[in-house]
Amino acid sequence: MTNTFELEFEVRDYECDLQGIVNNARYLNYLEHTRHKFLLSKGIDFAKLHDEGIDLVVSRIEIDYKYSLTSGDKFIVRLNAHKEGFLRMIFEQEVVKLPEQKIAVKAKVIGVGLKNGRPIKIDSIPGFERF
Amino acid sequence: MTNTFELEFEVRDYECDLQGIVNNARYLNYLEHTRHKFLLSKGIDFAKLHDEGIDLVVSRIEIDYKYSLTSGDKFIVRLNAHKEGFLRMIFEQEVVKLPEQKIAVKAKVIGVGLKNGRPIKIDSIPGFERF
Amino acid sequence: MTNTFELEFEVRDYECDLQGIVNNARYLNYLEHTRHKFLLSKGIDFAKLHDEGIDLVVSRIEIDYKYSLTSGDKFIVRLNAHKEGFLRMIFEQEVVKLPEQKIAVKAKVIGVGLKNGRPIKIDSIPGFERF
Amino acid sequence: MTNTFELEFEVRDYECDLQGIVNNARYLNYLEHTRHKFLLSKGIDFAKLHDEGIDLVVSRIEIDYKYSLTSGDKFIVRLNAHKEGFLRMIFEQEVVKLPEQKIAVKAKVIGVGLKNGRPIKIDSIPGFERF
Repeated sequence: MTNTFELEFEVRDYECDLQGIVNNARYLNYLEHTRHKFLLSKGIDFAKLHDEGIDLVVSRIEIDYKYSLTSGDKFIVRLNAHKEGFLRMIFEQEVVKLPEQKIAVKAKVIGVGLKNGRPIKIDSIPGFERF
Repeated sequence: MTNTFELEFEVRDYECDLQGIVNNARYLNYLEHTRHKFLLSKGIDFAKLHDEGIDLVVSRIEIDYKYSLTSGDKFIVRLNAHKEGFLRMIFEQEVVKLPEQKIAVKAKVIGVGLKNGRPIKIDSIPGFERF
Repeated sequence: MTNTFELEFEVRDYECDLQGIVNNARYLNYLEHTRHKFLLSKGIDFAKLHDEGIDLVVSRIEIDYKYSLTSGDKFIVRLNAHKEGFLRMIFEQEVVKLPEQKIAVKAKVIGVGLKNGRPIKIDSIPGFERF
Repeated sequence: MTNTFELEFEVRDYECDLQGIVNNARYLNYLEHTRHKFLLSKGIDFAKLHDEGIDLVVSRIEIDYKYSLTSGDKFIVRLNAHKEGFLRMIFEQEVVKLPEQKIAVKAKVIGVGLKNGRPIKIDSIPGFERF
């Protein structure tokens, strides 16, 4: 089973700040949306899991900003996911500007599952046993 | 000259996502606002610098999410800043829930200065020579 | 019982868009936060009501943008609330720049209460009978 | 020349608030992005105009919220534009949920052009003479 995924985006003007570039926090939105679409492609629905009492949350992000996207830029977010130990999902993600495939952002995102506020084994979350 | 600073905030409901907690990207907003207010307290205006052709941008963030803030929570963001080499400002930041002083987020943010898209020495930016 | 309220804010740089002014959508965030703080001051908690199955939602907004706020501006949001008929709360709101008391935005926001997706009488929502 | 336009979107989880529905302010983001893409399709670039000293700003919005979009919903934003007098562009916009074509939001947005902070004739802005 392949754990890579990519999603295409376009910068929206309201995502740019007064410097005329995409604000640093917006990239976390792009990264999150890509993770959720990836999970959906595996039959895992972030919103439904929440309704069932299981919350997928981010425990750590390391993000390098290498090139600033700006108004109208098209880009893809690439994702590669794997488990680490019993409790963690690791998402290696890249924001890549199109068409020249220039890397704008590189990030490593660590996610964990919580039930009633306590960490649970990733494999116990429906859908994650397949990773 | 002291390079510590803190700013008080309160979670606004629109900052919470469908899990009922502050979305991971919002913390970068809190961290940024605190950095800009700190810089202002030193006479450095992020918006004015941009108008003068100098952009302060984030080159890397490491952020650990330890405790989720939610609707109505009050918190402070603490900051400690220092220079590293000629090109980098390091901001050590913490989001601390009030009144119990519980650490919600710990982050290390690296900032650089750009002029016409190229890195410039931090000390050449008016106001930064005092750090 | 007085149904007026005001709350002080300060523009955060990330709220400005590439024009260097506060983006039009952000004012709705300011207006909402003020409404929620007003309701809290009356003992009505938007987030708790949601947990109890009652959702306060906006059904209509009329908003006039008169003056653009920008980086660092301080302002207050004023609110005046009253019931209209059995189903609606009307919030007259103003965003007023400080210190010169210049009106930046004027808005009329209509809110309704929903239970299981259906409109309910405003007076049946705990706390609203006092308006 | 036809002045209608439509753009397809999908709700991203971070756009939902603690009620699990798209926050009222987010619809203004959708409406704005659609207007900017419409203008681009006519050769008018919002960001470039700003660089040239002309700012297109919103002077009034009337928006009716009829149905709440939620996680994963697909929708289109429809737009119909016309001039009103010398100074105003009127954008009639609808947010329509797919696939059932249910109207979620109806809005009327009035835009004006500013040069050095003063209103200018819409027809004097390059590209707008064709409307």
